[in-house]
Amino acid sequence: MKLLIPLLGKTKESFLDSAIREYTIRLNRFLTVELPVLREQRRRKTTDETIRAAEAVQLLEQATTANFCIALDPKGISVTSEELAGMLNRWRHQGLGLICFFIGGYSGLHSSVLHRADQILSLSHLTFTHEMTRMILLEQLYRACTIIAGHNYHK
Amino acid sequence: MKLLIPLLGKTKESFLDSAIREYTIRLNRFLTVELPVLREQRRRKTTDETIRAAEAVQLLEQATTANFCIALDPKGISVTSEELAGMLNRWRHQGLGLICFFIGGYSGLHSSVLHRADQILSLSHLTFTHEMTRMILLEQLYRACTIIAGHNYHK
Repeated sequence: MKLLIPLLGKTKESFLDSAIREYTIRLNRFLTVELPVLREQRRRKTTDETIRAAEAVQLLEQATTANFCIALDPKGISVTSEELAGMLNRWRHQGLGLICFFIGGYSGLHSSVLHRADQILSLSHLTFTHEMTRMILLEQLYRACTIIAGHNYHK
Repeated sequence: MKLLIPLLGKTKESFLDSAIREYTIRLNRFLTVELPVLREQRRRKTTDETIRAAEAVQLLEQATTANFCIALDPKGISVTSEELAGMLNRWRHQGLGLICFFIGGYSGLHSSVLHRADQILSLSHLTFTHEMTRMILLEQLYRACTIIAGHNYHK
């Protein structure tokens, strides 16, 4: 099973970039995770909606062969770490080959991406930057793998 | 107004340590935040409850002069970033001098700490390591300050 997490632009905060790299290495011990970096839309001289629409085209292009798509959005349902582990375990047992996660850019996700998603999840009632969201998602996917494997990380 | 966030042991993950240092610097532009490092209890040859009780003594000692204490615990209520900013703003207007945040160690918080807390908050339904919790709390306090100040960070 492969997890695809397209990133809208590089991670600019160096400590978050380090964290993302580290959790990616740890996660790759359990399954394949790929983080292709897409071109970030320029924020000047245009509206948030135009940016979201342009980013949506890029994100949806990445997901054409995905078996299951998850969007991270404040409108989504909250899950616990154990529930996320349960989801990951089910996808594996269902033999799904490619799972795609959509994280919005600075302006959030376009409605077309939310429409394409098979499930919409919210990580917290708190608002995180999209770079922080990347890190938390990777850490939680790693945590999910350790929960499934019965390892002693879960605290 | 001063925020006191006692840390049970140093932050071992270097990227989280970098993040914590960076958000502390940013937060200190708005208010004073102090992160005294307490001695972490050894996990060998003892129970989780014994560790929590020993850590509770250290945490409560830090909070003797605090005007308001907040414990972070999965049992707490979820707040949004805007609600956290509202709380921070209220404490400031009430003229509270010292606010203390309790973050549990590896084994979580002892019941005596939850009992002492004026409010119990939960950052997410997800489980985070206590080191990750430190980083998220600092980032959210910084975000709260930018929301109050009307700055353009909140995305």
